[in-house]
Formats: sequence, C-alpha cells, structure tokens
Amino acid sequence: MSGPGPTNSLVDVAGLRVGHASRVGAGWLTGTTVVLAPPGGATAGVDVRGGGPGTRETDLLDPRNLVERVHAVVLSGGSAYGLASAEGVMLRLERDGVGLVVGAGPGAVVPIVPAAIIFDLGRGGDFRRRPVAELGEAAYDDAVSAQGAGPARQGCVGAGTGAVAGGLKGGVGSASLRLPSGITVAALAVVNAVGSAVDPRTGRLWALDAGVEGEFDELAPPGSERVGAGPAPGEARGLNTTIGVVATDAPLTKAQCRRLAEAGQDGLARAIRPAHTMFDGDTIFGLSTGSASEAADPATLNSLLAAAAACFERAIGHGLLAAATTTTPAGTWRSYSETHLRVGSAGT
Amino acid sequence: MSGPGPTNSLVDVAGLRVGHASRVGAGWLTGTTVVLAPPGGATAGVDVRGGGPGTRETDLLDPRNLVERVHAVVLSGGSAYGLASAEGVMLRLERDGVGLVVGAGPGAVVPIVPAAIIFDLGRGGDFRRRPVAELGEAAYDDAVSAQGAGPARQGCVGAGTGAVAGGLKGGVGSASLRLPSGITVAALAVVNAVGSAVDPRTGRLWALDAGVEGEFDELAPPGSERVGAGPAPGEARGLNTTIGVVATDAPLTKAQCRRLAEAGQDGLARAIRPAHTMFDGDTIFGLSTGSASEAADPATLNSLLAAAAACFERAIGHGLLAAATTTTPAGTWRSYSETHLRVGSAGT
Repeated sequence: MSGPGPTNSLVDVAGLRVGHASRVGAGWLTGTTVVLAPPGGATAGVDVRGGGPGTRETDLLDPRNLVERVHAVVLSGGSAYGLASAEGVMLRLERDGVGLVVGAGPGAVVPIVPAAIIFDLGRGGDFRRRPVAELGEAAYDDAVSAQGAGPARQGCVGAGTGAVAGGLKGGVGSASLRLPSGITVAALAVVNAVGSAVDPRTGRLWALDAGVEGEFDELAPPGSERVGAGPAPGEARGLNTTIGVVATDAPLTKAQCRRLAEAGQDGLARAIRPAHTMFDGDTIFGLSTGSASEAADPATLNSLLAAAAACFERAIGHGLLAAATTTTPAGTWRSYSETHLRVGSAGT
Repeated sequence: MSGPGPTNSLVDVAGLRVGHASRVGAGWLTGTTVVLAPPGGATAGVDVRGGGPGTRETDLLDPRNLVERVHAVVLSGGSAYGLASAEGVMLRLERDGVGLVVGAGPGAVVPIVPAAIIFDLGRGGDFRRRPVAELGEAAYDDAVSAQGAGPARQGCVGAGTGAVAGGLKGGVGSASLRLPSGITVAALAVVNAVGSAVDPRTGRLWALDAGVEGEFDELAPPGSERVGAGPAPGEARGLNTTIGVVATDAPLTKAQCRRLAEAGQDGLARAIRPAHTMFDGDTIFGLSTGSASEAADPATLNSLLAAAAACFERAIGHGLLAAATTTTPAGTWRSYSETHLRVGSAGT
C-alpha cells in the first residue's frame, strides 16, 4: 500500500534539499525558494501550461538538447524581475564548485539553474520590493543549512510568501508518496492562482480528493464543524501562476522527466479550478535523482505519473492549509483555515 | 528589385535601436547587446535550434501564450551567467515607464525582455569576468543615445566582443533588405559557432552566396589576391552558439514571428557549417514592429521568410568581416580579414 514518505514533503526524495528566503514588512511580501539537486545534479524536464509564464533556462530542458542535469530549480516571487534570484543561486553553486564543467580551467563550471516566477508584485505595498540575486543567495544558504535537509517548510515562506489563490492566502505546499515498489515521488507547489482551490458548493479543498489514508481526515469528518461557505471572491484578473516541482528517486530520461512534469499539471488541474488560465503562468519542473540517461519502463513510469499528479494535488492542499492570514498596506488575504475551518473543531 | 536599406543593418526596421556594452582587458573579453523595440513593444517569436541553449523569457513567446509584445531582446556573452544582463535592461525600461502594465498603480510595469547568451567564458583570461546587470544597463544607455538609432555597430562589440567562429574571431554582424513591396526585413547576428563561416576549399565566406548586388564584390573579384587557404582549425569542442534577431516592419502575429525566426535559422545553416550542433545554443528571435495581432497573408509572409534567411546569412558574413584579430592572456583569435584577405588587395 502506498503512503507518504517520512516527512510527506519533497525531501523524501533522497538528496533533494529545499531552502526559503522571505521578505516581509516595509513594503515587502515576497520571497524565493530553491530546490537543490544532489551535487551531481538531477535529470530534469519542464512543462509550461499557463498563458503567462515567466521562466529562465527552460529551453535546455528540451529532451533534444545537450544538458542532462540541473543543479537547482529556483521558484520565486517578483514576476519577471524575480528571475534575478536565480543569479544568486548560480553564484553560490559556482562558489561551491557545483555546475556543468566547461573545461576552461579549475573551478570553471556553469551551474544549470532553471527558474520560474509567480506574480506577487505590490502585495506588500511597494511594487519595487522584489527578489534580487541576494534573495537567491539567502535561499541557497537556507537549503544547505540543517533546515534544508529537514521537512520542506510550508505556508507563507519563500516563493509562497506573497502567494494568493482565488482570493485566499496561498503559499508553499509539499507532499510525498512512497510506492509499493520502494520508489518515492514527491512534489512542492507554490500556490498562486487565478482559480480557487476550494469547491464553492461545499467549501472543501479540491485537493482532498487525492489525500492518502488519514492525511486530511481532520478537515472533513462526518458532522464536523467545517464552515461550508464558498471562498472569498477571486481577484478579477491579475497575472498569477502556480509553479512547482515534482520529483522522484527513480531513474528517468529527460523526456520522462517532462512527462512527470506534465502529470503534475493534472494534479494542478484537479486542485485549482479554473487552472492554466491565460493569466496564470503555471510551470512545473520534473526531476529525477536517479542515474542519468537510464529510462524507466512504461509500467513503472505510469505508476510514477499517477503518483506525481496526486502529490502535486496534495501539495496544493497543504499549501492552502499551511497559509496564514496576511495583512499589508495593500490589503488583507485571509487563510483557508480562518475562512473555512472553525478553530478547534478538528476531532470534535 | 530588392536592395539593402539605408544602413544595411537592423535599424533599417524603423523604431528598432541597438545598443552595445563591451568589457575588454584585465581578464575581460565579453559584452552585451540590446535590441530595443519601440515603446509599445514588438510582436515576437523565438526559435531555439542548438543543443545547448541558454535563454530567458522564451516560454511566453509561445504563440499560445498571453503576452504579445516584447520591449527588448538581450543578447549577451557570459553563458548562463550573462542572463543577468537582462535584469539591467528590465530596470532601465521600468525607470522609463516601458513595460507590460500590470495594474498595480502608476508606473507598475513589467518589461518583457527575452534573452539568449553565447559561451565566451574565459576568453579574456578570467573565467569570472562576465556580464552582470550593470552591463545590461550600459547597453540600454547606449541604445537610447544618439548611437542607438544609427547604423548597428558590428564586429567585436557588445555580445560579439568575445565571439569566436570556427577558430576565427567572430562578432556582431547585421544586414537589411528592402523588398519591392516596401517592407523592410533586417537581421543582427552574434556569430560564435563551433562550425566555420568559411568554405575550406576556397577560403570564401559561405555568406557571400546571399549577397545582394555589389555587397561583397570586393571580396571575390575574379583573379583577386584573396588567399585561398582554409581557416584555422576549429576548436575541438566548446559550448559556442550563434544568436540573433530577425525583424520586419510588416505586421505579423506571434506565430508568424516564430516562422520568421525559423527562417533566420536557414540563413545560419547556409552561413555556418556545421550549424546547430549539440554544442551550439543557436537561438533566433523574430520581431515585428507592425500593428499587434495583424497577420500577414501567406504570400507576403513567404517573401519575408526568404528575406529573413538571406539577411541572417548576410549578417553572419558581415560579422566575420567586421571582426578584428584579438589577443588576450587566453589566446589569439585571428580575423577573417587577416587570414583570408590580403590587405589592400580589394580592387587590384
């Protein structure tokens, strides 16, 4: 029987580390999250399915192209400005000697750091408070600290600091699944969507449909005190975006990593409605920490795809649940916990 | 009859400006080039056809996606590190109020600045001397100066500063064509290739095949004193890359801009052999300064595609001809003019 890994988060895929850097207050409400691959890198693919993506170094992930492995993936607030955070991660990786060796002398490496961003501009009150290279460096430092190897922190941290989903406060969520084969699949999502993560008829998180045994039980026990009201009205428009990573320790080719990323988009489609709008830049990276260039057989791959969809869906649910009501000079975004869960009702 | 525009360079497409920033000496041999669109932006597409691309903000150029117009295209040295130069151009455009209006108050814009890089790391002698945001700012400042609207400067400038093609010194080249319909097509190429721009049997630039009347006459008159030797041996390997822009003043859709970019790759295929190797990241942007969302009819588009291929091919030829022999602590790269043209032989 499948169940979550030990932390029910991305780091259950051995070798991956997650770091966050956040800036809050004085006009700020944004941050950067980095997913660090093992030093040798992770095989990677990407699937971009929103109408307004903001990305960096995604073309090299095309399976036809040369570079097989990435050294980190950066997820950041700040819209296109926030792509600058990836530079900070590149510089730290170079300092630590990690990257594609380009044969121009000792220490000559080019770290491969694809990145995607969410739109959170102005939510802290000052349009110009956006992640720059230094925030990427801080996220990297966090990832290589003791915290980075621990359970991925969720909610209003890192790239999720300024996230909003369907008018409720969004954030970072993560989940994992250990398959009967022993393979682990996991996901990390930064939930920032035009659409809503909440079923307006019941107030229930769509992601609960994918919950593993016991995972979301306290949210929907029969006769619970859960408030059934729909979510706050979604923002009329805006350039939002849900971004994230799905990963596995099974060996996959680059093309299979892309399939894994595509499967993650199915989880997104289930957990957020509408998903993939023209005003989202929904982008998911697929990572494999297994041996490079080794392919999974179709049956194994199929099991990973289903798990990737479920993990990404559950990660979105966890992101909503971990988010906290946030107020800045630009407004208040209430959390799902505040609007839909009566405090102390769990288990009563 | 078709012929070049007034400057035989990219700025013959009205409204486009070109700026360069270069760093040479003390370990440096690199630079950044920016192509500035008119303030309202240019419709854009991209075609990535090398095996080792380094890019930024290319996913939004997919014709299925929302953003129709870009505000600048950045071409830079520095491999993936050099993508940082695009941040500087973004900040300058924001300062000047140019960008996608995102509705978060006055001055709230996100400039759309796709970018691609070439591999020139270490050619100045110091692997760590690479374009950063400040070099993008300097290139922008150059583009908005009087120089930016003048003929695009060619040779060892901007992103072409550290370029090498098939063992010879590469550089920036540009060309234009005014069609009988009155439409202008133009190209700018940063020539930095694993392959060679020179026919090894004759020493002739492949690009001469596309020359318009009189354009390359002085290079290959019958009985000229041209030295017929082949080029210096190409570098055994390396992550090179030819990048550039093809542009027109005809209105095109995003999908048609992509076709224009693809046509540019045909010019690259003719002018550099081999082209599009696994160690090149050959990336061409297609720009239209015409009205947004207006489509060219197929016959008109066909004429533009042929012109785009020819312009990119000629631009590569001009890049080789404008390059100058360059020596740094890392080596000497001789120019085509030095190795293949006897000084003073033209016209004798």
